Amino acid sequence: MKEYVVAIVGATGAVGMKMTQLLEESSLVMKEMRLLSSARSAGKVVHFRGEEVTILEAKPAIFRGVDIALFSAGGDVSRALVPEAIKHGAICIDNTSAFRMDEGVPLVVPEVNEQALFAHKGLIANPNCSTIQMVTALAPLRAAFGMKRIIVSTYQAVSGAGAAAIDELKKQSTTIINEKEVESAVFPYPIAFNCIPQIDSFHESGYTLEELKMMNETKKIMELPDLKVAATCVRLPVITGHSESVYVEFEQEGATVTDVQRLLRVAPGVTLQDDPSTLEYPMPADCVDKKDVFVGRIRQDVDELKGFHLWIVSDNLVKGAAWNSVQIAERLVALKII
Amino acid sequence: MKEYVVAIVGATGAVGMKMTQLLEESSLVMKEMRLLSSARSAGKVVHFRGEEVTILEAKPAIFRGVDIALFSAGGDVSRALVPEAIKHGAICIDNTSAFRMDEGVPLVVPEVNEQALFAHKGLIANPNCSTIQMVTALAPLRAAFGMKRIIVSTYQAVSGAGAAAIDELKKQSTTIINEKEVESAVFPYPIAFNCIPQIDSFHESGYTLEELKMMNETKKIMELPDLKVAATCVRLPVITGHSESVYVEFEQEGATVTDVQRLLRVAPGVTLQDDPSTLEYPMPADCVDKKDVFVGRIRQDVDELKGFHLWIVSDNLVKGAAWNSVQIAERLVALKII
Repeated sequence: MKEYVVAIVGATGAVGMKMTQLLEESSLVMKEMRLLSSARSAGKVVHFRGEEVTILEAKPAIFRGVDIALFSAGGDVSRALVPEAIKHGAICIDNTSAFRMDEGVPLVVPEVNEQALFAHKGLIANPNCSTIQMVTALAPLRAAFGMKRIIVSTYQAVSGAGAAAIDELKKQSTTIINEKEVESAVFPYPIAFNCIPQIDSFHESGYTLEELKMMNETKKIMELPDLKVAATCVRLPVITGHSESVYVEFEQEGATVTDVQRLLRVAPGVTLQDDPSTLEYPMPADCVDKKDVFVGRIRQDVDELKGFHLWIVSDNLVKGAAWNSVQIAERLVALKII
Repeated sequence: MKEYVVAIVGATGAVGMKMTQLLEESSLVMKEMRLLSSARSAGKVVHFRGEEVTILEAKPAIFRGVDIALFSAGGDVSRALVPEAIKHGAICIDNTSAFRMDEGVPLVVPEVNEQALFAHKGLIANPNCSTIQMVTALAPLRAAFGMKRIIVSTYQAVSGAGAAAIDELKKQSTTIINEKEVESAVFPYPIAFNCIPQIDSFHESGYTLEELKMMNETKKIMELPDLKVAATCVRLPVITGHSESVYVEFEQEGATVTDVQRLLRVAPGVTLQDDPSTLEYPMPADCVDKKDVFVGRIRQDVDELKGFHLWIVSDNLVKGAAWNSVQIAERLVALKII
């Protein structure tokens, strides 16, 4: 059985640490775990599968012998080091937005389009957190009924913006409860007890980059260039777990709420939580550290019989980032691509 | 000039206190302010326009001589006492959902349908908070371009659920920051750092009553029985200020973002806050204690040229409740209906 050398670039960040933890639990047979970071964080020691691993500085030469490299250290680091890792023969799984929309770069959510992995040229992109959970829930519905249109409003946690964002939310919450003046550093405005209808910067169209990512990545992953997708992305005072209010319009008629529930109950990577009689529905507080995408509040539109409303929740650091990347690594092995 | 006797039923509640404050500042010429509550809260003394007003128990006989009675003490109190107040000749403005959908009861947002006031039979209903802010922003667009469809996802504050809800949110926030176990009493689940996709109870259709209120009230206020409206209502850890992500589809073609902005800039009761270049958009933290409805993030749909996305924010206790009721009272006088 082949043993792999796996590297994580950005190992000291929130997503990098989740990747390490998920690889520790993974069935992937590994010869070596190479944890990489900026020079500043290098030298720290991490325990991995019973061994001590010293974090090294991410530099081009360090990728020698690496089979799979997971990147989560920002777009600039990926742009600089992914080509170097590919040169050394590694398959890169990049969690930044640097290459996602590049032609020839597979953008993969294993439950949705793992067949795209076969076309890789050394680089596979991991989609945006808010995109991943949506397409995971919608793919089985698309397969059954076709898909014409998606309108999504997001309810996004702060943890996607890093550990400093979590600290800022907690600190501001206490400050407001004590009726003092709040200060903001990570977000443009106070996030505690507020919501900010802006994630990432604005494009000239008036949409934010986060909204455009959801719109464009969804079409690419689902291989539906003509799918109508509109997104409004909003940051909330939630620590971890993105929620999404999704309206979806099928191509075919005849679907019922029961059909949609039946499909999602058996869908890979999805947990159905949908029982109004017991107040069962997904919530961010319940999804933390879980790998699945949780779906509930399924309703048929009152006026448009092909239209359905869903509430989709997932841990943005797990399925939305680290777990999807580790899953891709596992699938590369399972499909004998590596 | 006529002087009016005005009563507030539910004067010690969050909305009742706002009503008292707004009537104090109002140009309405008043002979007497009668503040009413349950027997439990009666006897308290409140300052109003330089005088001391003792809160009295709300009982049928107390409405003798009352010209205008504002109700905000729950549906049961309205059902019991509105008919009594009408018998005594008062015009009632009811802030509960008890009579809103009754035929013959005007459901009024003054900026949208004040002409409906003329048909009153002693009772005018004040719509649900989340409905009011949406129709205030959409009415001028409907007048210009017609309206076929609305899909709204709400981001609702806890203050609509009363003072106990605000306490619960603050207490739970501190508890979670201190890593202790939280308890819930007002809401079915912890609301701090979470979102709950349920407001009010569930209807057998799978929609919540809050969602159905938005859907049905919007059609009634806009006098568009065939308008397609779908709502998903979500409770957030925000103290005051409801936000709404609204997709709207016009009947007519040709509208641009600039047209929509131009209409909303001069619309009554609306403040346009829409400049991505300066990160200007509405947020709940900025709307508190303001009477207007704030609109921003205006974008044309990428695929549907008649479709537009808006972000609508307002203080749910002010325009969403107390101010809309006081406005109705003022308009009854201005239009010489009373």
